[in-house]
Amino acid sequence: MAKKRKPHRPKARLPKGMRDLGHDELRAMGTMLATIARVYETYGFEPLDTPAFEYTDALGKFLPDEDRPNEGVFSFEDEDGQWLSLRYDLTAPLARYVAANWDSLPKPFRRYQTGPVWRNEKPGPGRFRQFTQFDADTVGTDNVAADAELCMLAAETLETLGIARGDYVVRINNRKLLDAVLERAGIDPFAEENARQRLTVLRAIDKLDRLGLEGVEHLLGEGRRDESGDFTEGARLAPDQIETVLAFVSAGAEGRGETLEALEQLAGESETGRAGLEELANMDALLSAAGFGPDRVRIDPGVVRGLDYYTGPVFEAELTFEAEGEDGAVRRFGSVGGGGRYDGLVARFKGTVVPATGFSIGVSRLQAALTALGKLGAGEGGAAGPCVVLVMDGERIADYQRMAMELRAAGIRAEMYVGSSGMRAQMKYADKRAAPCVVIQGEEERARGEVTIKDLIEGARLSAEIADNREWREGRPAQFSVPEDELAAAVRDVLARHRA
Amino acid sequence: MAKKRKPHRPKARLPKGMRDLGHDELRAMGTMLATIARVYETYGFEPLDTPAFEYTDALGKFLPDEDRPNEGVFSFEDEDGQWLSLRYDLTAPLARYVAANWDSLPKPFRRYQTGPVWRNEKPGPGRFRQFTQFDADTVGTDNVAADAELCMLAAETLETLGIARGDYVVRINNRKLLDAVLERAGIDPFAEENARQRLTVLRAIDKLDRLGLEGVEHLLGEGRRDESGDFTEGARLAPDQIETVLAFVSAGAEGRGETLEALEQLAGESETGRAGLEELANMDALLSAAGFGPDRVRIDPGVVRGLDYYTGPVFEAELTFEAEGEDGAVRRFGSVGGGGRYDGLVARFKGTVVPATGFSIGVSRLQAALTALGKLGAGEGGAAGPCVVLVMDGERIADYQRMAMELRAAGIRAEMYVGSSGMRAQMKYADKRAAPCVVIQGEEERARGEVTIKDLIEGARLSAEIADNREWREGRPAQFSVPEDELAAAVRDVLARHRA
Repeated sequence: MAKKRKPHRPKARLPKGMRDLGHDELRAMGTMLATIARVYETYGFEPLDTPAFEYTDALGKFLPDEDRPNEGVFSFEDEDGQWLSLRYDLTAPLARYVAANWDSLPKPFRRYQTGPVWRNEKPGPGRFRQFTQFDADTVGTDNVAADAELCMLAAETLETLGIARGDYVVRINNRKLLDAVLERAGIDPFAEENARQRLTVLRAIDKLDRLGLEGVEHLLGEGRRDESGDFTEGARLAPDQIETVLAFVSAGAEGRGETLEALEQLAGESETGRAGLEELANMDALLSAAGFGPDRVRIDPGVVRGLDYYTGPVFEAELTFEAEGEDGAVRRFGSVGGGGRYDGLVARFKGTVVPATGFSIGVSRLQAALTALGKLGAGEGGAAGPCVVLVMDGERIADYQRMAMELRAAGIRAEMYVGSSGMRAQMKYADKRAAPCVVIQGEEERARGEVTIKDLIEGARLSAEIADNREWREGRPAQFSVPEDELAAAVRDVLARHRA
Repeated sequence: MAKKRKPHRPKARLPKGMRDLGHDELRAMGTMLATIARVYETYGFEPLDTPAFEYTDALGKFLPDEDRPNEGVFSFEDEDGQWLSLRYDLTAPLARYVAANWDSLPKPFRRYQTGPVWRNEKPGPGRFRQFTQFDADTVGTDNVAADAELCMLAAETLETLGIARGDYVVRINNRKLLDAVLERAGIDPFAEENARQRLTVLRAIDKLDRLGLEGVEHLLGEGRRDESGDFTEGARLAPDQIETVLAFVSAGAEGRGETLEALEQLAGESETGRAGLEELANMDALLSAAGFGPDRVRIDPGVVRGLDYYTGPVFEAELTFEAEGEDGAVRRFGSVGGGGRYDGLVARFKGTVVPATGFSIGVSRLQAALTALGKLGAGEGGAAGPCVVLVMDGERIADYQRMAMELRAAGIRAEMYVGSSGMRAQMKYADKRAAPCVVIQGEEERARGEVTIKDLIEGARLSAEIADNREWREGRPAQFSVPEDELAAAVRDVLARHRA
């Protein structure tokens, strides 16, 4: 018997690690992004947008080969054989943009950019393969005033979003100091053959927050096995080298001056160390002069950032309060953004060094924190559902349509029900849409030249109070009739009542 | 001799068919998108966001095979071997979303969505491989009130954006009428074997605007050779069939009633035709009752839309005025959006038909038109450049930083120059940033406890007037000094002067 071919019916599912965003989340995100943009504009940054993908070689680092075209990024071949990749951050496209437009740009060039980035990595809880970043960068100056400014910008942005002083801290450090400490431990940080070990040290320190000093100690040495049994290879430093590095990362004190003194002892011998100290001291002076004390910006040698390309100051914005997450567990939100100086990225294209520094916000993490704080409620910045005009008589939809128009003309969010179901389904629809009220005109009302307005918010409140169902139904509470020409005014009253 | 390996230096270039958006264009776009969203919200639509890519089979139509994985879309293989594609519109992801979340959605489901889409096609002037769409859809009802509403929404959106009544028209038609006309010409529009011919007819009529009746006549027959010599295969209809189709597409009159009568003659015989006529008549009645006359929404049988999946009403929003484009040439902008009813898209997943209708705006085209109309000036909705505090003495940047902060605290967009160049370069920088003024405090001013404000806008104006260079320099026009503590007030005065 020949098999009958069934029509192919694809499954309706999201690619793994991706998500849809509904209206509450989108509105909250919109409000948040607009606030960030407003602060960045005040600081003189200008918006820029670059496309979702770039030539893979322009993104660097991830050049695909025939066997593994997708190492960390999503890559595909153009019809002319050139490889393209979805951007994995907003910094690499900025470097391409700056290199391509250098001559016509104001120098320094200051831009902000927000948008999705993509990572071809294993997704996990709260770890998506598409997520949004919000970056500000200053390109074309080695003046650490630009770095200090980004730290102030980070602090001011968090405060403008409603995070109280004391509930966050911007931690700063300088890569040159770490290099000096490595030199002191007998490892030349600039030698090609030490590059991998240096990166392993960076990544080990970057986990300080999560694993504590003991965990970092293992990662600086032979390696570490986590609870799941997975083993992470260590940097294989000798015990005295580990001690030197750990002394450095724990040298942070409350005051910036105090920390600077401690660092002087640990890293002040070499030229590299002195350069790093001078940069930190300059940033400290600028921050102090601008009134940004150590309650807002702290020097913390434990902050190094995991990325290879930073060359000087690095910073991390961290939320220090505890709050309930989406899963109900209480925890610190931790880092919501970070950045630093990267003097080599544009040089990849131009050959000459173009110093640059930037700060990047992880939008979802920050949004989750603000939501937990109640600073971005579902309704905040958005609208409640629309007022719904019910269709009581299919022959009269032109009349109902006119009522919806009349409400909209009065500035009220309103729609006529455009489905084909009965009264019960329409009420259910209005509920699902979070409609504040519905407008009803059946035969009776029409004969009297009236419309009925049912206040759904008041109705829900009363319904919770009144136990007796019959009493409830007979009383028809929270609904009233008005003459047709008073519709808009009456709905406006209902909305105003609930806004108060 | 062994070749020396040079370091690989990638070229800083955009992938072909892609573009960067600078701040003027981005601000104008932001203003425009916010206005559209505001109107859509008033009509009761809610925002939704879906990821940039979907499983290729969920997007449908473009299922890649091993040899040509990129037919019209950008596709790549996930690590588990499944194919992914960047979305080529916002409708296919909506269908996936609705099918996946059907049970929990309000019905009908009304959403709007904006974002980039990608097409793997040959780029050309004004034709990019990434562009932005803005869609509104109502899913889950076959009531043409939903279609009529989208036409009103389109008209109201264009007017809210500043396009005068009379400068645009929304043209509507119904696919069922075209099917009835094909039946009348002896072609069964629903027969599988005629699918390709029917699509060729659709695409031929869709070019009416560009090629005129004669061009369409060729495309309905043997085919057409354009000026470049390229030949497009025709639908191979017989002369009398062509006549029948052309009579239909030219049946549009000024008034909607008149057009409906003409269509009654041409397509009223069959069941399909009568169904289409009834839908159009219902839309006409709703539009008339809502005050949308034929100056805003016209019935035009020449509008069919090129896409295969429309099943009932189709609509197209067109700008009818002429304006100068970016290239200086005067032309009509034509279609800036369109849509229609597509009852089969969700059925691909669910098996059961879920009727739907939508309207999509081509954002760049509309933005170009609004810019040409002067409705979205470069400055509009955005800010002028920041006020720049010059660095006259590198030792005193903490003081300059404080001045910039003071200005920001007063609500003024301001920055300290963070580069390392001299006065001349700093002035050039301020010019490039379109700074309205610069703030200067050299040794002299400091000794007097004063700051100097140089009004760059007034300066540019005077410089155009004054011919004698020496007189100009000596007069130091458009600059004045104030006591330090009057800085913010004085800058605010300068800004207010230019705003008036």
